[in-house]
Amino acid sequence: MIPRYTPADFTEHWSDDKRFEVWLTVELAACEAMEHEGLVPKGIAASIRAKKLPLSAARILEHERTTKHDVIAFLTHVEELAGIDARWLHRGMTSSDVLDSALAILLRDATDKILVRLDALLSALAIRAREHKKTPMIGRSHGIFAEPITFGLALAGHHAELARAKKRIQAAREEIAVGKIAGAVGTYAHLSPAIEARALAALGLKAETVSTQVVARDRHASLFSSFALCAAAIERFATNVRHWQRSEVGEAEEAFTAGQKGSSAMPHKRNPISSENLCGLARIVRAAVAPALENVALWHERDISHSSVERMIAPDVTSTLAFMLDRTKTLVEGLVVYPKRLRENLDRAGELYFSEAILLALVQSGMPRQEAYVLVQRNAMRAWSGDGTFRKNLQADNEVVAKLGNEVIAQCFNLDHALAHVDLIVERALAKG
Amino acid sequence: MIPRYTPADFTEHWSDDKRFEVWLTVELAACEAMEHEGLVPKGIAASIRAKKLPLSAARILEHERTTKHDVIAFLTHVEELAGIDARWLHRGMTSSDVLDSALAILLRDATDKILVRLDALLSALAIRAREHKKTPMIGRSHGIFAEPITFGLALAGHHAELARAKKRIQAAREEIAVGKIAGAVGTYAHLSPAIEARALAALGLKAETVSTQVVARDRHASLFSSFALCAAAIERFATNVRHWQRSEVGEAEEAFTAGQKGSSAMPHKRNPISSENLCGLARIVRAAVAPALENVALWHERDISHSSVERMIAPDVTSTLAFMLDRTKTLVEGLVVYPKRLRENLDRAGELYFSEAILLALVQSGMPRQEAYVLVQRNAMRAWSGDGTFRKNLQADNEVVAKLGNEVIAQCFNLDHALAHVDLIVERALAKG
Amino acid sequence: MIPRYTPADFTEHWSDDKRFEVWLTVELAACEAMEHEGLVPKGIAASIRAKKLPLSAARILEHERTTKHDVIAFLTHVEELAGIDARWLHRGMTSSDVLDSALAILLRDATDKILVRLDALLSALAIRAREHKKTPMIGRSHGIFAEPITFGLALAGHHAELARAKKRIQAAREEIAVGKIAGAVGTYAHLSPAIEARALAALGLKAETVSTQVVARDRHASLFSSFALCAAAIERFATNVRHWQRSEVGEAEEAFTAGQKGSSAMPHKRNPISSENLCGLARIVRAAVAPALENVALWHERDISHSSVERMIAPDVTSTLAFMLDRTKTLVEGLVVYPKRLRENLDRAGELYFSEAILLALVQSGMPRQEAYVLVQRNAMRAWSGDGTFRKNLQADNEVVAKLGNEVIAQCFNLDHALAHVDLIVERALAKG
Amino acid sequence: MIPRYTPADFTEHWSDDKRFEVWLTVELAACEAMEHEGLVPKGIAASIRAKKLPLSAARILEHERTTKHDVIAFLTHVEELAGIDARWLHRGMTSSDVLDSALAILLRDATDKILVRLDALLSALAIRAREHKKTPMIGRSHGIFAEPITFGLALAGHHAELARAKKRIQAAREEIAVGKIAGAVGTYAHLSPAIEARALAALGLKAETVSTQVVARDRHASLFSSFALCAAAIERFATNVRHWQRSEVGEAEEAFTAGQKGSSAMPHKRNPISSENLCGLARIVRAAVAPALENVALWHERDISHSSVERMIAPDVTSTLAFMLDRTKTLVEGLVVYPKRLRENLDRAGELYFSEAILLALVQSGMPRQEAYVLVQRNAMRAWSGDGTFRKNLQADNEVVAKLGNEVIAQCFNLDHALAHVDLIVERALAKG
Repeated sequence: MIPRYTPADFTEHWSDDKRFEVWLTVELAACEAMEHEGLVPKGIAASIRAKKLPLSAARILEHERTTKHDVIAFLTHVEELAGIDARWLHRGMTSSDVLDSALAILLRDATDKILVRLDALLSALAIRAREHKKTPMIGRSHGIFAEPITFGLALAGHHAELARAKKRIQAAREEIAVGKIAGAVGTYAHLSPAIEARALAALGLKAETVSTQVVARDRHASLFSSFALCAAAIERFATNVRHWQRSEVGEAEEAFTAGQKGSSAMPHKRNPISSENLCGLARIVRAAVAPALENVALWHERDISHSSVERMIAPDVTSTLAFMLDRTKTLVEGLVVYPKRLRENLDRAGELYFSEAILLALVQSGMPRQEAYVLVQRNAMRAWSGDGTFRKNLQADNEVVAKLGNEVIAQCFNLDHALAHVDLIVERALAKG
Repeated sequence: MIPRYTPADFTEHWSDDKRFEVWLTVELAACEAMEHEGLVPKGIAASIRAKKLPLSAARILEHERTTKHDVIAFLTHVEELAGIDARWLHRGMTSSDVLDSALAILLRDATDKILVRLDALLSALAIRAREHKKTPMIGRSHGIFAEPITFGLALAGHHAELARAKKRIQAAREEIAVGKIAGAVGTYAHLSPAIEARALAALGLKAETVSTQVVARDRHASLFSSFALCAAAIERFATNVRHWQRSEVGEAEEAFTAGQKGSSAMPHKRNPISSENLCGLARIVRAAVAPALENVALWHERDISHSSVERMIAPDVTSTLAFMLDRTKTLVEGLVVYPKRLRENLDRAGELYFSEAILLALVQSGMPRQEAYVLVQRNAMRAWSGDGTFRKNLQADNEVVAKLGNEVIAQCFNLDHALAHVDLIVERALAKG
Repeated sequence: MIPRYTPADFTEHWSDDKRFEVWLTVELAACEAMEHEGLVPKGIAASIRAKKLPLSAARILEHERTTKHDVIAFLTHVEELAGIDARWLHRGMTSSDVLDSALAILLRDATDKILVRLDALLSALAIRAREHKKTPMIGRSHGIFAEPITFGLALAGHHAELARAKKRIQAAREEIAVGKIAGAVGTYAHLSPAIEARALAALGLKAETVSTQVVARDRHASLFSSFALCAAAIERFATNVRHWQRSEVGEAEEAFTAGQKGSSAMPHKRNPISSENLCGLARIVRAAVAPALENVALWHERDISHSSVERMIAPDVTSTLAFMLDRTKTLVEGLVVYPKRLRENLDRAGELYFSEAILLALVQSGMPRQEAYVLVQRNAMRAWSGDGTFRKNLQADNEVVAKLGNEVIAQCFNLDHALAHVDLIVERALAKG
Repeated sequence: MIPRYTPADFTEHWSDDKRFEVWLTVELAACEAMEHEGLVPKGIAASIRAKKLPLSAARILEHERTTKHDVIAFLTHVEELAGIDARWLHRGMTSSDVLDSALAILLRDATDKILVRLDALLSALAIRAREHKKTPMIGRSHGIFAEPITFGLALAGHHAELARAKKRIQAAREEIAVGKIAGAVGTYAHLSPAIEARALAALGLKAETVSTQVVARDRHASLFSSFALCAAAIERFATNVRHWQRSEVGEAEEAFTAGQKGSSAMPHKRNPISSENLCGLARIVRAAVAPALENVALWHERDISHSSVERMIAPDVTSTLAFMLDRTKTLVEGLVVYPKRLRENLDRAGELYFSEAILLALVQSGMPRQEAYVLVQRNAMRAWSGDGTFRKNLQADNEVVAKLGNEVIAQCFNLDHALAHVDLIVERALAKG
């Protein structure tokens, strides 16, 4: 979580102040649930809440230097602020009841911030996809001209992929919105399932099915996996922008703001630096999956090896992904598309992309596929090496003309036909947002 | 996919023969759909299917050495077996229409094989969890004695985690059961959405929302992520078996078959080698997530960099995970549990796990939490260093007795009370299988 | 290790037969060392060696099914072939003495096979780098035209990177060429450092500094890391080939063999499939680093979790990397370079790459850098947007002409000057092979 | 880089202030080298240096918000502080000349800080290894009692592994201490190899063999790999501490400071939290290897995707590893070892570890190995199941006594003999620090 790649709301979200505030929220929810069950005198939580304790992160960290235990340090501080009533807090609970329920809240809410941004990105993509759904473009496989698509179709494909990413994050969000108030080793020795259910419900969480001392870490690993899949979807889009913008292609370009300088030595350069940046950040988000998976196999009823990992990756990954989504949205909205250049590149493909139509026509006419392939290939190869155009070569190839006639050949060279279904595909995709 | 870690059905599943058989199935399904739409004469597919072509993988690979193109090699072979009708196959299609729809079938079916095994493992775990749901055990956090649990509760926790793994795999299975019959760059230039839908439905697949030349690779990455999460769940179980079996713990042990030898030098040894093996294999399954994620960002309408990765990880990961599930099931079923030793270890904890009950009683009596903590700690520490038992120390501590009285102290030392909710937790977990 | 990506010598190298042969070699070397120290009667090893035992992998695996222990199965088989003398084998040794010393031999020798291939690749690159060291090319940063380089310079950069990869592999090769003959937990309880040193020297190995039951696994992790770095260097080269070959660039192309077909639907296509394949395989090799690192932290004096990982990654990674090196060498040797197209692309950059020379001349003339930058940028931007050429715009810009005069402007547009040092760089790099 | 896991000197080392200071150092070194070559008037650098420019990170970042280019922002700021002379800075250079040479300095110096800490850890380990080189301990393989070792031997093994880690980091340190002053695409178009060599020598760096716009990223990946290997070595040590400290083992324990509290619910607990923390942090350091490797394959003469990755992992990984080394040293120095418990656990193994000695004696007496194995096993198994001790069972086994006699049996049970070579092994290892 470095300032450069952290949205402002995430700086606040992962602050010490916020964390301790959420801890107190959890303690009070648990306390109220215990009041309801008669384990704690009525009104304790309400009374403490009413005091609006001015929690001091600095003071808690000071206590922690002595106790080497964060939750005890926190409770000591709460006790020094709230007085004798505070002894009712944390009754029968273990530190992880607070820590893991609070982490669930923080991760759930960070995920919600991510989902809001993902929706915004999807909307931006939908607008641009519709805008360019009829802008012809040469499709490329292996970086080599293939058959025509439209620019909007390409964008719709990215929309579809990000829509799938959203669905996975939503599923993982349900998995992570799970806390525990179940005591030292998850047995409710001094608590009860009813207390836990009530406390967690107040926090918008469900209860862990079987707690150990902690909430199971496969839930967190699943969340980080869903984030990595979203980052990979962004990486694919950013990679394509980089291709579209390269000098020889020039089909689309990141917006270039006034005052921005591309290079200290080559002032004419407009580099796709946002897209390259997104590709790098995708590596960062992806890299968190392995440690998150390694965190799962805690020993017995838990060890604390997961904790240092989460202290680093939870803020880093959520804020980086949020930043990526914001940046991608800006990129999509500002993307400068050059239909003229798109058309030029399409034309440079020399209509070779109609070879499939010719091939099919030859097969339709009764020629075995492999023979037809040879006929098409020889005319295509000549055109490719600069000898005539593909269309003219075919029209001059007696064997081809004998089979198809000039009219059928002409019908094969039809861009509208090739793109006839694109509108449907794009709309089908955008409907799934 | 090495023989040692490959179940027999996976050897067959990922064979060349099987792959080419599935390719033919896809071609025929597409052909039939085109017959229905009038693009191909009626009866072609049925006629080819009736010939029960004796596909030869060897012959196809021979063709591939010349053409350097697998699908063309395959079609050449089909044409040499089926004759002139074969020219109708693959009409308007691109190689990836076949390859990706076939891969979808193979991955879907491999996933189904995995899900069957996962169900069997869940059943085995449920039986053992119920068997030992009242077998007391000392819970451990940080490897240190904490509070009592039961052996069945520990197993139920693993059951719950694997049940979540199952749910994720089921979701990813839906994502991967997606093919495409959409032509060179996904535009249906010589096909139609209707043909695709009909062909894929016959194969039990859905259509990719927006194809490029290929089905989008985030789907595959999601599947491999779900496998890694399952492997991590197994790793946690296997890690615990290794702990339970270690000499000083001795609470449970892998079944040791007649004739098996633990060590060439130390014949008395019974080593948890299955569990250790499972931990290693979990690393293998986990390692596939990164390349699967790196596969997502294909260039433009596709490059083929994903293909070599998938040729290796698709068979490796699915067969390794299936092997792991089989081995874990055998491990669970054969696990030798030692209730006597479990009880001995519980007793070695010296009832210190009742410290929380004493702490709560002191707080209940009106003492601030941190003061109560000091009282409990001093008696616990003495017991821990070998000076008296925790219970007797408390009974001899005037300050404690003054607060609680001997009767309340005695009530705090109650194992049944500590485990009162375990039955509910276990049954709640098993109900979620 | 799938046939498609496995060189023939690696198929043999990682066969069961080879492994058991190496095991026997280790046992006999250890036996001879013990003979020298008087622990075993003289001549035992020579006598067994003379029998040229017809080891049967099938028979050993059969024994293993009963014993569930590979080395005991092997020794049982040796005993049934060699008779009573075989009882002297393995004296005071533990299975890992054999397994780990044998693995060291196999990995060392596989590494040597890799190094031979890497040398061949370096030679091929050197030839092409020299061939094209004066072939001008537009350098690109961010995919955008920057300043001129030469094609040979680009190749020399890949040569330098692979030469570094070689040095790292050589260092890791020394680390892995380490065995142990130190008994159950590395204490030489029934052996001695002298026996170990003698036996290992005969095998071309050094002794582990401190063995546990096994050779330490950081050595293996270091080897796999060095392989991943080599694969990454190949990936960078392959990525560049893919860029050079893309339709709009067309500067270089993979050799296309007679009979090869690029696409079933678009017969004119020549796709950089070798390069794409290499990028995919680099992901596979890279993916082995994480499990290799996870293998390091074995419990106490060892657990066997590393074994399953190594059974898979040792053959997979070494053979895949060897395959990659072979393929890259073929790619380099066959690479079709198009100097005409290189020149055309250079020209498309419109001499904007001389902007730096103009900028420097302006600064030299006394203008502050940021002012000069503005002057250069305005002329460059006009040219970039199609309004005149950069050179002509400058010549028509009164402010520029006033500062520099037309002669100095002309001197700034000098390609030979820009590339004056390239020869030195290339030769300096190739000297480091 | 979160405060919790960042040593103070690393906070400063990776600050904006430090970075800009190093940038200026690089610019001035380059300027002086150009002065020497006559490209810049003599004395410029000295004059600027003499001004001790009060660089303001805040002001530079402000400029960057407009220019979106960090080095241009920096130069603008230098120009506003240093005046007209500053126009001579950066002459003929590209941003990456500054950035990459500065990064080389920062990474080299961070590595040196790490190496100092690693030496301190090795010294601490050496002291404890010697202290306990004769403290007997039961060796364990698979977590099961094997044969005796000493506690010092175990520590010496960790020392040896960390000494290897040091050697790798030293090698990677040489690789990373490489800069470039070679211009836009590494051709020295307006510079020269001589200028570069002089400037870099003044900075303690060597020149990149073949630069693109940047220094090649395999160097950085190699550095991060060496760090991951060091972290893995620490992880193995920390894992063993966790095992040694667990309740049932109790052989060694992390120092527990006054005031420290193990658990809010179980005040008697002393948890190996430092060791668990180290295991978690090892995952973090390991996770950086993959993105560092992915950074290698930059496009053409560079893209900037590596930059965001390095901004995060360079500070994170170096500071985390430094923190780990500090913490491990503290852990080693404070480790409380319990020789009495070590001996008790050794005794619990029931002398079964002498089985190998008996086996060898039987083989020596002429019995085939597999027969001897059966004899040993039956007595060992009885002892293991609680029926007699291994020694007494053997003395009562007529077949064994007939072969060996009671005297030989007695000689086999000799701990000093089993540990005779340990002193040599430990000293041999420590000599390699």
